[in-house]
Amino acid sequence: MTHKIAILGASGYTGAELVRLISGHPSLDIVALSGNSKAGQSMAQVFPHLRHLDLPVLTRIEDVDFSGIDLAFCALPHKTSQEVISKLPKTLKIVDLSADFRLRDPAAYEKWYGNPHTAVDLQAEAVYGLTEFYRDDIKSARLVAGTGCNAATGQFALRPLIAAGAIDLDDIIMDLACAVSGAGRSLKENLLHAELSEGAHAYAVGGTHRHLGEFDQEFSLVAGRPVEVQFTPHLIPANRGILATNYVKGDAQALHSVLEHAYADEPFIKVLPFGEHPSIRHIRGSNFCHVGVVADRRAGRAIVIAALDNLTKGSSGQALQNANLMLNLPETEGLMMAPLFP
Amino acid sequence: MTHKIAILGASGYTGAELVRLISGHPSLDIVALSGNSKAGQSMAQVFPHLRHLDLPVLTRIEDVDFSGIDLAFCALPHKTSQEVISKLPKTLKIVDLSADFRLRDPAAYEKWYGNPHTAVDLQAEAVYGLTEFYRDDIKSARLVAGTGCNAATGQFALRPLIAAGAIDLDDIIMDLACAVSGAGRSLKENLLHAELSEGAHAYAVGGTHRHLGEFDQEFSLVAGRPVEVQFTPHLIPANRGILATNYVKGDAQALHSVLEHAYADEPFIKVLPFGEHPSIRHIRGSNFCHVGVVADRRAGRAIVIAALDNLTKGSSGQALQNANLMLNLPETEGLMMAPLFP
Amino acid sequence: MTHKIAILGASGYTGAELVRLISGHPSLDIVALSGNSKAGQSMAQVFPHLRHLDLPVLTRIEDVDFSGIDLAFCALPHKTSQEVISKLPKTLKIVDLSADFRLRDPAAYEKWYGNPHTAVDLQAEAVYGLTEFYRDDIKSARLVAGTGCNAATGQFALRPLIAAGAIDLDDIIMDLACAVSGAGRSLKENLLHAELSEGAHAYAVGGTHRHLGEFDQEFSLVAGRPVEVQFTPHLIPANRGILATNYVKGDAQALHSVLEHAYADEPFIKVLPFGEHPSIRHIRGSNFCHVGVVADRRAGRAIVIAALDNLTKGSSGQALQNANLMLNLPETEGLMMAPLFP
Amino acid sequence: MTHKIAILGASGYTGAELVRLISGHPSLDIVALSGNSKAGQSMAQVFPHLRHLDLPVLTRIEDVDFSGIDLAFCALPHKTSQEVISKLPKTLKIVDLSADFRLRDPAAYEKWYGNPHTAVDLQAEAVYGLTEFYRDDIKSARLVAGTGCNAATGQFALRPLIAAGAIDLDDIIMDLACAVSGAGRSLKENLLHAELSEGAHAYAVGGTHRHLGEFDQEFSLVAGRPVEVQFTPHLIPANRGILATNYVKGDAQALHSVLEHAYADEPFIKVLPFGEHPSIRHIRGSNFCHVGVVADRRAGRAIVIAALDNLTKGSSGQALQNANLMLNLPETEGLMMAPLFP
Repeated sequence: MTHKIAILGASGYTGAELVRLISGHPSLDIVALSGNSKAGQSMAQVFPHLRHLDLPVLTRIEDVDFSGIDLAFCALPHKTSQEVISKLPKTLKIVDLSADFRLRDPAAYEKWYGNPHTAVDLQAEAVYGLTEFYRDDIKSARLVAGTGCNAATGQFALRPLIAAGAIDLDDIIMDLACAVSGAGRSLKENLLHAELSEGAHAYAVGGTHRHLGEFDQEFSLVAGRPVEVQFTPHLIPANRGILATNYVKGDAQALHSVLEHAYADEPFIKVLPFGEHPSIRHIRGSNFCHVGVVADRRAGRAIVIAALDNLTKGSSGQALQNANLMLNLPETEGLMMAPLFP
Repeated sequence: MTHKIAILGASGYTGAELVRLISGHPSLDIVALSGNSKAGQSMAQVFPHLRHLDLPVLTRIEDVDFSGIDLAFCALPHKTSQEVISKLPKTLKIVDLSADFRLRDPAAYEKWYGNPHTAVDLQAEAVYGLTEFYRDDIKSARLVAGTGCNAATGQFALRPLIAAGAIDLDDIIMDLACAVSGAGRSLKENLLHAELSEGAHAYAVGGTHRHLGEFDQEFSLVAGRPVEVQFTPHLIPANRGILATNYVKGDAQALHSVLEHAYADEPFIKVLPFGEHPSIRHIRGSNFCHVGVVADRRAGRAIVIAALDNLTKGSSGQALQNANLMLNLPETEGLMMAPLFP
Repeated sequence: MTHKIAILGASGYTGAELVRLISGHPSLDIVALSGNSKAGQSMAQVFPHLRHLDLPVLTRIEDVDFSGIDLAFCALPHKTSQEVISKLPKTLKIVDLSADFRLRDPAAYEKWYGNPHTAVDLQAEAVYGLTEFYRDDIKSARLVAGTGCNAATGQFALRPLIAAGAIDLDDIIMDLACAVSGAGRSLKENLLHAELSEGAHAYAVGGTHRHLGEFDQEFSLVAGRPVEVQFTPHLIPANRGILATNYVKGDAQALHSVLEHAYADEPFIKVLPFGEHPSIRHIRGSNFCHVGVVADRRAGRAIVIAALDNLTKGSSGQALQNANLMLNLPETEGLMMAPLFP
Repeated sequence: MTHKIAILGASGYTGAELVRLISGHPSLDIVALSGNSKAGQSMAQVFPHLRHLDLPVLTRIEDVDFSGIDLAFCALPHKTSQEVISKLPKTLKIVDLSADFRLRDPAAYEKWYGNPHTAVDLQAEAVYGLTEFYRDDIKSARLVAGTGCNAATGQFALRPLIAAGAIDLDDIIMDLACAVSGAGRSLKENLLHAELSEGAHAYAVGGTHRHLGEFDQEFSLVAGRPVEVQFTPHLIPANRGILATNYVKGDAQALHSVLEHAYADEPFIKVLPFGEHPSIRHIRGSNFCHVGVVADRRAGRAIVIAALDNLTKGSSGQALQNANLMLNLPETEGLMMAPLFP
């Protein structure tokens, strides 16, 4: 049986990535694509790499007929997303890729995003979309909030360690190298090739990155006490991938065991042999996350490194994984493609 | 029904690409992988991006048991390839990705490759693997010779035009921009990141590139008279993709019509609307080839531009397409994945 | 003696390149910098790589005091440039980096740039700034028009050959690989890192690129008859550099001799040994242009390849070279720095 | 007065960088270049970007006539360097760019480099070449040991803070993003463009990188007690630059003041305004080091980020700066060129 799918906000990178993934999915059929600024254009005009596909023309959201649609992916900017989703049919299954429903606390949302939440009932209803840790809730959810791509990477590295009480909660340092597609297709000077190529710089230094709201929420929840990590993302000259190098205090071998155990049955999270660590070039274009643990020369300190593709496992792949669960399909359907290397 | 597959020379980029593609193919099962210099290692050690797959350990070729194997892909260096294939069971179906069986004339082989051919009977038997033009022969072939990646790109642009007598045969100039994976995983100074990044240079200038042997053979065959093109490849700082900009004399609109007609039913060759032209970023990781035609400001001159991924449509994807035909499977099986962008 | 310099339009890449070059020049002193959209900011804010320099704050053009200024570089967009220069003191020496004064014929200007020229007297006065060929005129000029970066590259390869009658004038094909800084710091989707990296595509295909106006004008002038070349630029994922691969009909050895003779005394144009050809990675950040000639396998055909840095020899370095002449300084002063490699 | 210079090991990247820098130095003259594996070749053959220079042909070291040479730069591999320098005239001034004389303790050398030191007298004589902190010793030294490029970056960020007792000595975490030229021109698989481009990975994780020997030595010296930092370098797809993100415990404002005070008179170390932080794209090709301090959201924690060009300030520029001092020349001579951007 084929499920009918809409993608709202299909003219951005996460929208295009959803189309790429769904084009290889045996049970999903894209019946509507919206992109207000590009309404009337074909996807081939906006994304020529999709020209081989037979896809609906981009429309305005208000022109989408939601009757008959089983599930909508919402790849809109935050704030816009809550406004749009508020007006969608209440029976429609939705996977939202924006930041609007990630934080459960309206005050936390306003603190990190600067505007009051205008759909607090939906915020309360939404399930946090980190599939490996919210699988059962997601299966029965109507509205799932996709996680931040950095937030996903960091949590895959550390969440089981915090849950196990295996690391010092007051001294967690997360240092991320992030490829540029995470910033979207927006026209900003620092995203130009001439600026970024041969460059590398930190951004949102000092605890100002919005994904900290997710880390605070989830790590505190898991730990049963407030946890505040230190988190510094860096922009590097690559298109896809996040490499999270996490500095923690704990026994490296024990941490490795906790992770191996936690992810033993996970199809997408691969824990490397002890002492090995991942590269973003080995997960590109796939839904896999590689995690490695290395002991520091000083006893009691370890480095935990995770790598994933921000557009796939970090957003659109994760979204499809959640949609599979919500539609009662096999969780891995359409998601087992191997990474593209080189 | 599942067919049993061996990949000989699996430790190079084309070998890894075959594994990537076959891992998503519903009817093929990899039962043997050889790589003499890496024998005894797992593919995860040689190519960590494949670590999620359950694959045979790399062995030496002489340790492969060919009984029960339906088809072997041979991704070995030229010269080695003919030596190895000479010793394989004569009933084994083989798709060879090397240059050893592309040229039908032993003298031409020796001219371009510098060594006499030692398997002229196999050379005579082999079918040239440019699927779209040798489809029927490939279906019944035992040994198919994969084309050069540059040779494939150029032929997709020009072959129908030459066949139709639509362009001046004495003034064909092919200017190619080639990504670096076409040079393989070999340790050469000019393939280092520090050398290639921020660089761009021509190579094999003046008619010395070996793929000219294929152009001469095929274009002369199609034209029914000798044709010698001018061909200059350039190495650019990208990993995958070939962009062939071809300068020809003929009526641009007529050329576009010839190509549209020639490829109307082809699943992988996409002719763009007249006046549009392709980019390698729109075919990366896929088996598609995009072709465009633009008229020059001077009447009677046209630019025909083709783009494909050298590792996919230019070698391993083409090889799988041919294998599908040889095994009586649907030609597109396992090959319809969308390009990866960005 | 130190000459006082103003740079109008200092907030773009060519403006920043002028500052970089002049900062190492012993006889020039920057006393005014304008950049209307960034007026009030320091150069360190706009270009942090210049933070070690003691520079004037960016002002609006109308706030620049031109008394005491010996020479102004004008790095403004075309059309704006002619408007601004029309209002500058008539005694001020000016090197204009825009396209406004490159074409001598107002009709040609309007044809290629779409707007009528509003300063035809200045257009008539301006000297074309290809130093190696207009040196004497430039020495006594008040207004010099910097050439297009592609136009410079192509002319360094072919101008002496056309002048010598050494090549077929009706069959010149120029194929260029251009780095992205040539497009400036403008916010366009195709200049984003995520779009350009791992990409390569032609643009302005078919004879629509504006630099053709310069080729037509200069090559026809040199040949004494109309010459129309075929010219296709390609955008490649690199920041600096133009590689021009030119396909011509003529005797390769003879062409090499013509070029060696023409450039024997030129400090910046280096003709490579016969059969060798250049790479853009070997001229980056310098004012050098490397030129090579290779014979094609078909007698009577040759490939002439030139490489230069579009921001240096292609625009700001050329501009400084011209300014040196206009100020009666040694032509090479401040310009002999070695390329940056890797 | 001009000083005569030899460069031993001129065929690597640091050797070429020395030539680039010295070519713009008014008081130094290169009279000998050695490169054993390339002896007999011109520098233009080995490094075509230097073809405009009139340079000695590469010779074998044993063929260099050291009479009349004032100073030799030694850019040889470690272990080779000590063997070669042991045999050089004892009156020759030497700046060594290898690791052989950085560590004062022979046991520490053997621990980090795996081989016993065979020139312990020279080891005792050598002055550690971090100019800003050993200036007086360098002026009178005969043998100066250039620092590791990572070691330089980290020390510029932290050394004044440790000296001032401003940070917790037991919790220093240094996370580095390193461009690939730091690995030299060696033929290794992970340095290939196809492997590194679109990749990013940590290396020498867990305290195994040899530059830790320098950190341990210098930081312990400054602190007056043993200091062991945690240090993780990452390889990123760029050619030049090191970005060191350092996580420390201390008052961010106070740290900024310490650094501003320490570097107030330094020509090459630029402390950014509080809260700003650097990018490697803004120091490329220059001898500048940019340092920034940002407060973390948690009081008492700060991020100190330093950026420099590994080939310039991290090795060859530093070496020239030291040579200037040893030859009683102005320290900044030949080193004030602006960074190349973009």
